[in-house]
Formats: sequence, structure tokens, C-alpha cells
Amino acid sequence: MSADEFDIIAKYFAPLATLPGARGLIDDAALLEGGPFVVTTDAIVEGVHFLANDPIDTIARKALRVNVSDLTAKAAAPHAALLTLIWPRNRDSAEIETFASALADDLRQYGMSLLGGDTTSTDGPLTISITAFGKPLGARTPSRADARAGEDLWVTGTIGDAYLGLNAIRAGYADEIAQTLAARYRVPNPPVQLASVIATCGAAMDVSDGLFADTGKIAAASNVAIHIEGDCVPISAEARAWMEKHNEPVTALLSGGDDYQVLFTADPSRRDALGQIATRIGRVEAGAGVFATGTTWQMIGREAAGYSHKLGR
Amino acid sequence: MSADEFDIIAKYFAPLATLPGARGLIDDAALLEGGPFVVTTDAIVEGVHFLANDPIDTIARKALRVNVSDLTAKAAAPHAALLTLIWPRNRDSAEIETFASALADDLRQYGMSLLGGDTTSTDGPLTISITAFGKPLGARTPSRADARAGEDLWVTGTIGDAYLGLNAIRAGYADEIAQTLAARYRVPNPPVQLASVIATCGAAMDVSDGLFADTGKIAAASNVAIHIEGDCVPISAEARAWMEKHNEPVTALLSGGDDYQVLFTADPSRRDALGQIATRIGRVEAGAGVFATGTTWQMIGREAAGYSHKLGR
Repeated sequence: MSADEFDIIAKYFAPLATLPGARGLIDDAALLEGGPFVVTTDAIVEGVHFLANDPIDTIARKALRVNVSDLTAKAAAPHAALLTLIWPRNRDSAEIETFASALADDLRQYGMSLLGGDTTSTDGPLTISITAFGKPLGARTPSRADARAGEDLWVTGTIGDAYLGLNAIRAGYADEIAQTLAARYRVPNPPVQLASVIATCGAAMDVSDGLFADTGKIAAASNVAIHIEGDCVPISAEARAWMEKHNEPVTALLSGGDDYQVLFTADPSRRDALGQIATRIGRVEAGAGVFATGTTWQMIGREAAGYSHKLGR
Repeated sequence: MSADEFDIIAKYFAPLATLPGARGLIDDAALLEGGPFVVTTDAIVEGVHFLANDPIDTIARKALRVNVSDLTAKAAAPHAALLTLIWPRNRDSAEIETFASALADDLRQYGMSLLGGDTTSTDGPLTISITAFGKPLGARTPSRADARAGEDLWVTGTIGDAYLGLNAIRAGYADEIAQTLAARYRVPNPPVQLASVIATCGAAMDVSDGLFADTGKIAAASNVAIHIEGDCVPISAEARAWMEKHNEPVTALLSGGDDYQVLFTADPSRRDALGQIATRIGRVEAGAGVFATGTTWQMIGREAAGYSHKLGR
């Protein structure tokens, strides 16, 4: 079923536009009031950020959540989003209803309004670009450049589940552990409830390109060295079970991606309180670069790790 | 030459981030201060909104200008933009420098800062999604729904040049008139200097899907009928020359797209002043629908005209 873009907007997306400034999505632009805002934009592309066979509802949730993840790491509460939906000519437009329904669920869950957007067709893969607006929860919006020597390095949640989930999907595993890990790849779960605490710490960013690579970005932007205590990196029970079964090295988890947890630094005086909500995995030192040590891995070089998009040929 | 996304951002795009809130593009999000803002987002896709062989500098300018066009029609002054650049794996990344250079020129011309963005690769066509922020120039941001019976209908610039330009490119013409029209298809020129006047009028929107279809959107949103006096629609000298030479019917220009001029309504008491900056092409009446009359065309049906993206199959 081919569908007219204006009908689709009116039927499926207009109900998600709960802010008055969104004008019910009948206008060409929205009015954004009540700032300042933290603003972020992230696109996901079929074959790059999700798999061609991923369910359309998980694709919708991932598109929004990778942006919510950035807001969380920047200590902001989700507020509104713009959706650009670039739909393949040969994909059934009946799926758009499921897409919109999952997006609606997530918008509600995060307390967000759809503010506007654009829909168009493409001869290429399904591509979704979202711009998200968040309200700062603290006096400052933490940057990558805010790490200081002497601070601890912390991370929320667990690391590596999504990386193992992607491996499990690609290898065709369908046992219970594989499905749990696959779900964590397909639908990240950024720790929005921790954003107000992040506002009181040091540097912060979300882990999307791999723990090691993203730690490197904080180190570079802050002009410091960061030492990761590999044995402290939080690994879920499912990830441990998978690694034992499939003989996967734990170091691979450091370089995987799609974690969408928050990596942040904080003064050692905060250890007791922060230990309730996150895991301390290292320390910030004078110098440059990132180093990881531990009983199960050798020191690994910075070049070995992390995901960076290569553009073009 | 394949290029690392972080190098590309640092080298070509960071210099365009002139607002402090953009944080030099080293962070994952930007801080947007000083609102309220008019916000719009429009994506352009190779093969849909531009041609595969269009020069990369014109593609960059078009991506920004289709958004500036929306800001202008909403009576806002361009302020900042987010750029999502989705680059084909098989396209030479050396072109990104030219892309960024043209974008830099246009950002400077419109007084805009790059605020942030995202870069990724794709197996599909070149796709550029831009979110633009504008500062309202008047007390109100005109909507499609603001037309009232008794008002005049106005349009800025000329209509149909881009439509004829696209035809000229597709047919392989390269004479001087064809080149002039082609340039108007490739690089729209929204009338930013008129945004403060638009703020004082009635309904307003930009003409992107064809004059007839877009007039229909104002009529529908405002619950009015609109009568277009076809003979009054402003046609450029180049378009007239082309139509005579190629026997193109003038009615086609009403249904073409890519004009990126502003369509707006205003009280008849404003005729003298507005006549200096735009062309009066019709009137708003009680009722519903859009009608066009004139010596060179029959009354044409609403179904016949305008561009609407069909999504999927």
C-alpha cells in the first residue's frame, strides 16, 4: 500500500504533537519556547545502525533512544523531538503505523512531544533522522572537556550487551540469552533517571562507539589521560554467560558499540553516593591517552578499539 | 579517499560553528539559548530532491536553503542549523570539502552558525537532513491557518523557473536560458529580506510542492476558498521565453515545485505597500477549495496539481 505523506502525518504523527508550538503538525515549522535547550541530532541508517530484518517497532524506539541517550549524558530531561522519516520506495507503507505506534509509546514514556518533521521517499535504505530537545537539569551542561586529573571514571549500567547481541543475531543464535542480548542491541535503554545526578559531576558523554573509544574522546577533549581498570567494567550476567559459552574475549566488549550508557567523571569525595547508581571503572590522570589494565587482558593500544564511520571512498 | 568522520568534522565543519553553544562541535549536543525559536527540518535525497549529477556545491546550498525558505515564510531570521550528512559509501569523500565550503558560504550569507550534527555512511543515495532555527521577527509566527475571507493572496518572486529548469536538465538542454532556469532549480533563493514584512500579514507558507497544491494547503488549514487569478501569476522573462520556444503550457507552472518563494495573504488595505515587494495573484473567499481562472487556462481541478510524496509500496 502506497500512502500519501499528508495522510500519514495527519493520521499517525499529528496525535504525537502534544506541545502547542507543534501546531498539530499542520504548519511548516514549529515554535520552540521555554528554553534554553540542549539540542542533539542523530540519524540511524538500515545496514549501518540497525539490521534490515530488525522489527520496525524496535527501529522506531532505537531512533529516538539514541538521541535520548545524548540528552541524558548532557544532564537534560527529554522535552521534544523532530522526526525525519526517509522511507524506501519498496518498503510496505503499512509498517508506518507500527513505527508511529512504537514511537508514540516511547515519546510518552520519556515525556516528549513530537514537534515537527519531514517525510520523504528514497531509493536507498530506511533512514531516520531525529533532532531532540532537552531541558537542562542543572546549572551546567556537562561537556566531554570537563574531566580533571584526580577524578574517578564512572559508567552506568552494563557494557557489551549490545555488541554481543549484534553478534548473536548475525550468527543466527535464538536461545534465551541470545534473545536478551539481541533486545539490548535493538532497543537501548538510556538511564534517563540519572540525568540530574550527571548534572552534578564532571565530564560526561554517552557510550555509543565503544567504551574505549569514547573514553578516548573525553581524554582528548579534556587534555588528560584516563586509566580504565578493566576488571571493574560492569558486565551483565547474560553477557558473562554468553562469553563463557562462545569463548568471546572480554576485551572485545570494550571496543563494541551501541551501549548507550553514560560515561562520566566525578570527584573521589562522591564515591559513596555514586556507587549506588553507577560503577567506578577508572581514574583521570595528568597526561594523554587511554590505558586499560586488568587480570584478563593485556594493555591494549588505542588504535585497536572503537567504531568510527568511514565516509565515502 | 575514505575519510574518518571525526577528522572531517574537525577540519571542515567545526569552523562553521560560530555560536558558543555549538561547543566547536566537539561535544555530543549543543546548548540553544536566546529563544523562542522557529524550528524547521527538511531533508533532501538524491534522486528525489536533487539529481545525481548536480554539483555538490549546489546540493549543499539547496539543503540549507529549503530550510531557510521555511524560516522566511514563518517570518523568522535565520539563526543556526544542525547538519546530518548521510554520505554514500561509494562517493568520493574528497567532495566533502567542496560541500562544506559551499555550506560555509551560505551560512555566512544568512548569518547562521552550524550548531551541531551527525555524519554517517549509507549504501543508498546521498541524503542531507538539516534542522534550522530562526528568530521570530514579529509578535506572531504566521501559520497556514491564518487566511481570512476578504484577504488578497500574494506571492514573492516568480513561479515555475525551477520546474522548467528541471525539465531543461532532464531534456539535456544547455543554452543560456536553460542554464539560468537550471540554476534556479538547483539553488533556490528564498526572499529572506521580506521576512519582517511577512510577519505583518496573514497566512504564510513557502511554495515548495507547487503553487496550486500549496495554496490548497492554506485554504484547507484556514477553512476558506482561494481563487487564483492565473494571468497574474508572476512568470520570469526566461520562463516565458522557454515556454514559447518549447510550447510548454503555462498551467504546468502552477503544479511544478521547488519555487521556494513565499505565498501569503493580507488585507486589501495593504495593496500599495505590498505591491512593491510581491505580486497579488488572487483572493481569499468563504467556502472551500482552490480555483484558478485566466485567459490562457481553463479552470483546473485540484486533483490535477501539486507534488505529494508517496511513501512506500
